Amino acid sequence: MIYFDHAATSPPLSSALKCAERYLQECYFNPSARYAGARDASAALEHARETLLNAAADGMRYSLVFTSGGTEADNTAIFSAAKRGNIVTDEGEHAAVYECFKSVKASGGDARFAPLHRDGSVDADALLSHVDEKTTLVSVMHVNNETGAINDINALAKRVKEKNPRCLFMSDGVQAFAKIPVYLNGAVDFYAVSAHKIGGVKGTGALFCKKGVSLSPRLLGGGQEGGLRSGTENVFGAVCFASAAKERLAAIAEHAARVTALRETLWERLDRKVFTRISPENGSPYLLTVAAKGMRGEVLQRMLWDKGVAVGTGSACNSKKPYSRVIAACGYGNDLLNGVLRASFSPETTEEEIGVCARAMNECAAEWKA
Amino acid sequence: MIYFDHAATSPPLSSALKCAERYLQECYFNPSARYAGARDASAALEHARETLLNAAADGMRYSLVFTSGGTEADNTAIFSAAKRGNIVTDEGEHAAVYECFKSVKASGGDARFAPLHRDGSVDADALLSHVDEKTTLVSVMHVNNETGAINDINALAKRVKEKNPRCLFMSDGVQAFAKIPVYLNGAVDFYAVSAHKIGGVKGTGALFCKKGVSLSPRLLGGGQEGGLRSGTENVFGAVCFASAAKERLAAIAEHAARVTALRETLWERLDRKVFTRISPENGSPYLLTVAAKGMRGEVLQRMLWDKGVAVGTGSACNSKKPYSRVIAACGYGNDLLNGVLRASFSPETTEEEIGVCARAMNECAAEWKA
Repeated sequence: MIYFDHAATSPPLSSALKCAERYLQECYFNPSARYAGARDASAALEHARETLLNAAADGMRYSLVFTSGGTEADNTAIFSAAKRGNIVTDEGEHAAVYECFKSVKASGGDARFAPLHRDGSVDADALLSHVDEKTTLVSVMHVNNETGAINDINALAKRVKEKNPRCLFMSDGVQAFAKIPVYLNGAVDFYAVSAHKIGGVKGTGALFCKKGVSLSPRLLGGGQEGGLRSGTENVFGAVCFASAAKERLAAIAEHAARVTALRETLWERLDRKVFTRISPENGSPYLLTVAAKGMRGEVLQRMLWDKGVAVGTGSACNSKKPYSRVIAACGYGNDLLNGVLRASFSPETTEEEIGVCARAMNECAAEWKA
Repeated sequence: MIYFDHAATSPPLSSALKCAERYLQECYFNPSARYAGARDASAALEHARETLLNAAADGMRYSLVFTSGGTEADNTAIFSAAKRGNIVTDEGEHAAVYECFKSVKASGGDARFAPLHRDGSVDADALLSHVDEKTTLVSVMHVNNETGAINDINALAKRVKEKNPRCLFMSDGVQAFAKIPVYLNGAVDFYAVSAHKIGGVKGTGALFCKKGVSLSPRLLGGGQEGGLRSGTENVFGAVCFASAAKERLAAIAEHAARVTALRETLWERLDRKVFTRISPENGSPYLLTVAAKGMRGEVLQRMLWDKGVAVGTGSACNSKKPYSRVIAACGYGNDLLNGVLRASFSPETTEEEIGVCARAMNECAAEWKA
């Protein structure tokens, strides 16, 4: 099977599992306990925290809170930062952010949504025009999970703060972290990341928090994670996450260059009479989204699976909706909206796989027409 | 090492890991995706859900939502059910419940705390006296994690509903599920459970929900778990949880009888001049809490670790506090409060281990005095 749905989830790296396995069965202790074994588990957790923190930020300026995943990290930051006044985001956000904003709006709050450019990146001027002295939070994702468009979050955060220095800025970095270079510049207050998108295991994520910015916990209880996220710490998941991030970061530029070339090879080999490209050339290396005019993405997806190729149709998290609200917000019409396919890669993706995928996509489209 | 801190966390069962490993690296797909591989993952998740559901309830009357652990399950139920009016719990609750009630109180809500009997069980009449026509939620844990006392939650829920039929009843079942027999009688609306206390892995829990009772999600996003808990499903964790529960349930009565006898053996061998028993005889088989008069539990704990025995001092989740508020609420004074040790067992605990632990505890107490 050729697996090109890494943006939905990526298999854990064997090296990461190996690195963490000690904390599954051998050093399984509750890190909050106080005997030596538990302190070993606790030390491993702190080491994982440092590794992840330094992967994207200055550890003197930021702290990191482990969560159960990207969704919890997003929810925690948003419900902590959203106060009276208004909150601003964009139409391209992942549901884990978008639904929080919608829920604030549904309960009478002032939640504002900035439009997208055609590639899925946020219209920065429009975003800024929504920000005023009463804005308490702006949230813009780093890499769009449906188109791969990259938002320059450091620059956006700076512009937001210039307009309103007390406004907090957060970013969902789930599709960016350990895939494209990230270094939080101090204007970004919160940054949400997920382990299973980069070779860690499901059930682990983290939230980068600017030091000095207060965070209200979403889960209350035993006071783990400095009181910011209660619940027994998942040491295995955290160590696995850090190990995967470390491995990915060690070759991030090299992988990005190679996979960008593979992404372009895929696009070059696709039948241009059928497929329209949605992903920008300057977007994430790891994602190529196209739309097949007049066809249905989920039917093509099933046909591709039968040929041994797994691709996405958009965000797997939104698989119950008939089409993607994000692609619609990019300005595409009904002729393309239903035919969206997202091929998403990993550093292990090969040129051979790209060739097979291109051929299979062209064949499926031809079979559809026949 | 003799590990007697299973109430803090228990190592995953090899059989459960083996049963679930397929969903870690082989069938790693995102269960929300729609190709056949993802449907395999989704089917495994649903099978795990059915197994767990039927382990403690009638699947026609209850549903089950997977969470990241017991804490999230508790928080979800409480913040969903707590409405205007008042909410009632007791002084013995785990922090994952207690802190939620305290936070409602801190923001001006009417949260009421019923006292405990000396064994840590809730004073049912006092609890009922707090319930009135404005009560929206009552929460009573099934097995007290610090003393092992068992509350008859089915009977309590019935009495609460007789007084106020619209009031919801929830129970933290983290120390009960798959350890003592549980069958929710329909008066219990929510029941929170955790995987890593019974041989599953950390990072997985679940909430039983009475059908027809509305639940507000705590985490918003992609709409997984029927919209009740967003975030990519942790299939590995869920399958591991179900497998561990199934194995534990298959011999639940046999294990309980054997471990109850071991618990009593431990107590019989302890120096009665030093140790006062806190756990009741009719409590959980898996837990014996004692207090060493005039000594400090965490120092004894360290001394025991040096002899190769790991025990708890109370809830590991509360390890930052000087003494346990729960043991204090049982009515013990300062002479005993600081000397609490909790030995907690698993079905694999052996008589030999019990003997070594008893000897080590007596020796440590003697060394303390010397």
